[in-house]
Amino acid sequence: MSSKPSDLPKMKYRYLGRSGLQVSAISLGGWLTYGGYAENEKTFACMKAAYDCGINFFDCAEGYAGGESERVMGEAIKKFGWKRNDLVISTKIYWGDANGEMPVNNAGLSRKHIIEGVDLSLKRLQLDYVDLIYAHRPDRNTPLEETVRAFNHVINTGKAFYWGTSEWNADEIASAHRIADKLGLIGPVMEQPEYSLLKRNRVEGDYILLYEHYGLGLTTFSPLAGGVLTGKYLDGIPEGSRIGTSDDPYIQYLKSGVGADEWEEKMNKVRKLKGIADKLGCNCAQLALAWVLKNDHVSSAITGASRPEQIYDSVKALAILPKLSDALLGEIDEIWQNRPPVLERVFY
Amino acid sequence: MSSKPSDLPKMKYRYLGRSGLQVSAISLGGWLTYGGYAENEKTFACMKAAYDCGINFFDCAEGYAGGESERVMGEAIKKFGWKRNDLVISTKIYWGDANGEMPVNNAGLSRKHIIEGVDLSLKRLQLDYVDLIYAHRPDRNTPLEETVRAFNHVINTGKAFYWGTSEWNADEIASAHRIADKLGLIGPVMEQPEYSLLKRNRVEGDYILLYEHYGLGLTTFSPLAGGVLTGKYLDGIPEGSRIGTSDDPYIQYLKSGVGADEWEEKMNKVRKLKGIADKLGCNCAQLALAWVLKNDHVSSAITGASRPEQIYDSVKALAILPKLSDALLGEIDEIWQNRPPVLERVFY
Amino acid sequence: MSSKPSDLPKMKYRYLGRSGLQVSAISLGGWLTYGGYAENEKTFACMKAAYDCGINFFDCAEGYAGGESERVMGEAIKKFGWKRNDLVISTKIYWGDANGEMPVNNAGLSRKHIIEGVDLSLKRLQLDYVDLIYAHRPDRNTPLEETVRAFNHVINTGKAFYWGTSEWNADEIASAHRIADKLGLIGPVMEQPEYSLLKRNRVEGDYILLYEHYGLGLTTFSPLAGGVLTGKYLDGIPEGSRIGTSDDPYIQYLKSGVGADEWEEKMNKVRKLKGIADKLGCNCAQLALAWVLKNDHVSSAITGASRPEQIYDSVKALAILPKLSDALLGEIDEIWQNRPPVLERVFY
Amino acid sequence: MSSKPSDLPKMKYRYLGRSGLQVSAISLGGWLTYGGYAENEKTFACMKAAYDCGINFFDCAEGYAGGESERVMGEAIKKFGWKRNDLVISTKIYWGDANGEMPVNNAGLSRKHIIEGVDLSLKRLQLDYVDLIYAHRPDRNTPLEETVRAFNHVINTGKAFYWGTSEWNADEIASAHRIADKLGLIGPVMEQPEYSLLKRNRVEGDYILLYEHYGLGLTTFSPLAGGVLTGKYLDGIPEGSRIGTSDDPYIQYLKSGVGADEWEEKMNKVRKLKGIADKLGCNCAQLALAWVLKNDHVSSAITGASRPEQIYDSVKALAILPKLSDALLGEIDEIWQNRPPVLERVFY
Repeated sequence: MSSKPSDLPKMKYRYLGRSGLQVSAISLGGWLTYGGYAENEKTFACMKAAYDCGINFFDCAEGYAGGESERVMGEAIKKFGWKRNDLVISTKIYWGDANGEMPVNNAGLSRKHIIEGVDLSLKRLQLDYVDLIYAHRPDRNTPLEETVRAFNHVINTGKAFYWGTSEWNADEIASAHRIADKLGLIGPVMEQPEYSLLKRNRVEGDYILLYEHYGLGLTTFSPLAGGVLTGKYLDGIPEGSRIGTSDDPYIQYLKSGVGADEWEEKMNKVRKLKGIADKLGCNCAQLALAWVLKNDHVSSAITGASRPEQIYDSVKALAILPKLSDALLGEIDEIWQNRPPVLERVFY
Repeated sequence: MSSKPSDLPKMKYRYLGRSGLQVSAISLGGWLTYGGYAENEKTFACMKAAYDCGINFFDCAEGYAGGESERVMGEAIKKFGWKRNDLVISTKIYWGDANGEMPVNNAGLSRKHIIEGVDLSLKRLQLDYVDLIYAHRPDRNTPLEETVRAFNHVINTGKAFYWGTSEWNADEIASAHRIADKLGLIGPVMEQPEYSLLKRNRVEGDYILLYEHYGLGLTTFSPLAGGVLTGKYLDGIPEGSRIGTSDDPYIQYLKSGVGADEWEEKMNKVRKLKGIADKLGCNCAQLALAWVLKNDHVSSAITGASRPEQIYDSVKALAILPKLSDALLGEIDEIWQNRPPVLERVFY
Repeated sequence: MSSKPSDLPKMKYRYLGRSGLQVSAISLGGWLTYGGYAENEKTFACMKAAYDCGINFFDCAEGYAGGESERVMGEAIKKFGWKRNDLVISTKIYWGDANGEMPVNNAGLSRKHIIEGVDLSLKRLQLDYVDLIYAHRPDRNTPLEETVRAFNHVINTGKAFYWGTSEWNADEIASAHRIADKLGLIGPVMEQPEYSLLKRNRVEGDYILLYEHYGLGLTTFSPLAGGVLTGKYLDGIPEGSRIGTSDDPYIQYLKSGVGADEWEEKMNKVRKLKGIADKLGCNCAQLALAWVLKNDHVSSAITGASRPEQIYDSVKALAILPKLSDALLGEIDEIWQNRPPVLERVFY
Repeated sequence: MSSKPSDLPKMKYRYLGRSGLQVSAISLGGWLTYGGYAENEKTFACMKAAYDCGINFFDCAEGYAGGESERVMGEAIKKFGWKRNDLVISTKIYWGDANGEMPVNNAGLSRKHIIEGVDLSLKRLQLDYVDLIYAHRPDRNTPLEETVRAFNHVINTGKAFYWGTSEWNADEIASAHRIADKLGLIGPVMEQPEYSLLKRNRVEGDYILLYEHYGLGLTTFSPLAGGVLTGKYLDGIPEGSRIGTSDDPYIQYLKSGVGADEWEEKMNKVRKLKGIADKLGCNCAQLALAWVLKNDHVSSAITGASRPEQIYDSVKALAILPKLSDALLGEIDEIWQNRPPVLERVFY
């Protein structure tokens, strides 16, 4: 196993939105990797490398690898004897099907599933509480009031410190705050959306008023768009690679357009991005990650890794951050042509 | 013991009113049967058969068989090793006399009896919590505020997820919501009324505004009116049958009119119902149960069973459901002549 | 030990004010007797006799006999194996000096003393909760809000079901309700005042609006005015009697006026009362107790007893109750001349 | 070890602001001394001496000596078998760095650090709860609502009775009350500011409206300005003394100006104070402490001590208190020339 390079930039910490919690700007997530794709020994090595780089935020979900992701990450936390107060651990409730034989009530955001789901997650994680608990998706079949109350119950019983959402519509987040305000309860503090050069609409568009109005913080996922932004597919999709073989819906969605003009157009843009990265003296992935972190509303960019080297590589993106001038950002906008229109106040 | 037929329709699940909880459209109740009339082995067999049919909701009450119903149903849950999150377990508080020697405070809806009653029920059930806790009747000697607060205490201490009522008047349910709203507490989510072709007033009449205003869900009991709608009494009440021998007040109430014109009139209607059932290729009981389930406000129809075959028979009612056309429903209304008037908004 | 007479009237139960809790009209208190004056064996015998008579309410306080009263009453409850739900147990917080060496914070109604005091009381009583917790006196050095919040904390943590006051002024009770309403908390449900033919002002005067406005219930103490109304001092205070020897402040207060005209006047009135009792075929104490119970606002009259016979004697007062006609009550009013003026609504 | 002098004045107790809690007017703090500078045996001796003098309030913080102060004071409480209800124990949350390796989330007033910090403090103190929990400084990076909610969570879970602040600005305290009021939560009851003849602005100026508006109580620290007001530096700073050698920021701040005119001016004022003390028959430290206690808003003046004699000496200040006439106080004001202007209501 490779050891930590001596020239890594120092980790940066950011407040989670307007809250008093600080998370490392780069964090490590268990999605698609831990408990499933990666062997446990690799998971342990990655988590150790992350911790040694100053990463304090580890992201999980009841739905990752059918609960195995929580199990192996919990094992790592115990194994390394880290102090609980040094860590920010999250999990998410929505897809808990793995826990039951009956087809209902093990998913969604009912009071029953939120409370039972959190208890089962904590058991797998071997923890008394998580720091962050997310609603992994909106559940439009459950009244928002039921969901807001249930997450407050989780907080009041000491099983989490903050609750948030993942991939909710902007108005749903605002409504949750309205209900919380009406009932004197705690509203959602953070959102976990997908955010990358390929996907900007939510973070830079839809959510734009939520930052100021509710102090919303973001923990974003897929900064490299599942690898597309690393440039590794510029010469075609390699035999046996995950994107070529996995039937995970997200992976399938990423390679939509493969073989068509759409895909080639995307690759051309990645080629131009690579040109900029070359000039900055970094690789394409580091530039893409730095670009995400350049957005002040991003409290933490969640990255995945199956080898410690990938983590060291990601951390180096912090050194690129100061080089992203307005001019350079404009250049990148020109390539992608997907910057959401800036919301302006109109005075009549 | 007969095994599950291979041609049973797949169980359907419905949301409990506007809540996020899903219950099987057909459920199994312990009333009049488990812990009392039926031997424990039969109870176990029935619960196993129900579970295998996809029934996830098992209904109980502290007052059923003096607590024995809870005890035997709890034993079954433990015995079969079902996952807690797969089940929706309910109990009801009101008649807990069995628990005490003093003539007071072991019944009704005082804070004392609700909290003590729930604790004793959970002990008998060997569970940490029930999903649903009902006020088994209204207690007009206890302030609604005391009752609303006590059920919220039960929910806040993690001993139940939702609370509801059974056989409350419509205005009492509305008042409970008003008090809950004023205090920022949780109102009653569901009602458990009697509902069958013989008893339509409450569900189709009195409660009609509660569905929209409060998202009220129904778990109904006695879909077969204690057997009357099965047609088994068409040729008289058999020697030694429960209706002929039991002194349970509900049984007594069912056979009111036996020997008089009123009873014969009822039997004539059942005969006509049987005619329709014959045409549909099902028995009278299945038609009566399907008719109950045709009402969208019914989240679950609670059935009783002392043999697995009765459960299989009930589940087949799901196949009749799509055949209940408007014309057919009109024909049934014609027979019974007891459809409550539709509430209309009047504009002056 | 004498056994229970066969001709005792059946116990009556009354709702505690507008609450859903029922208490026996006659109850047994530990004041001045249990843990102190009476040997433990006598306390056990009295409590057994009371329970056998249908008395379900046993009244205690942290301040009675420096905590010993709670200890011995708790021992009795355990010894007899009574079911917890059959009993209504109370204690009161205010005078907990016995528990500490420091001169402060072991008395009064601060959050600290209420919470610590309740925990110490429950330990002495060997119970998980009391049914009723009282503020034994008003504490005008502690903000009412602090006290209201602390008693709600006791209720929320499951250590009591209802809270009330003892010897508070009417406006203090009303203020406590106002604060509770403002904060969405539970207000005081009951008051424990002194009430007897010798002391009518509070119950029939000061509190008169509280019954309707707040549903206030009363558990009253000293129905016999410490023995004065039994008639046992008509021929002078016997050598060695408690009233002659005790230096308890209440006892001292009772015999104020002994040797002066005031005392003789009181004895003359008792003599006239005795005349009425003779006509009713009961003793003076039974008439005095029945007179207290005649007031509908009295949920329970707390009596003391050092021998089972005294309890049987008290219970017989229930048989006198129906004989207290308006005429007779008027006759008694004539003797004592201390009926508070009836509050009337004045319309201009 | 010297034993308690027989001629010590009796301890006085004061209500903590408008709350119902009483604290000894003189209290003992662990700052700069226990767990660090003083050996444990000396800490034990001082705490025993304080308790014997009637001191019931012992002040601590997670940040004192990196947690060691709590550990040794907790050990003393256990060692001497004092009753928990006799004591008022405080701790403060803000600087908990000692608990973690990660540079974030172990300090400040986030929900995470408040809850985790309190749990770690209680573990070190070997207690189930503290009486008082303070926010050791304002945390302007955390929303006040998050902090107010978290301290209420600590109180609701039974880990503290009252919460307060230390060295907050007046408007921050008022804002915390406004948020608490809006949410129906408990506001801060007390403040712990520095207060001495050298530092009067906050207590006599900034906070002046908070006493009446919010019933704010004060527990003040550094009544002797770190020794400056004892007069022990009148002839220069002795070799090896703490003020001469320590690099603690507070100590550094105290001796700012040493060697310059500013310092000499200060010493001249101390000399004049000493003149008054001589006339009163006490030493300079006793006069300075009595002067602090003369302010009615001071519920308790926290003193430090590394030897029992220092405690006896402090307690004697109580005897000086009645001698501080208005004339004498005016004389002292004349010396220091630092009395904040009295706030006056202006009517136009």
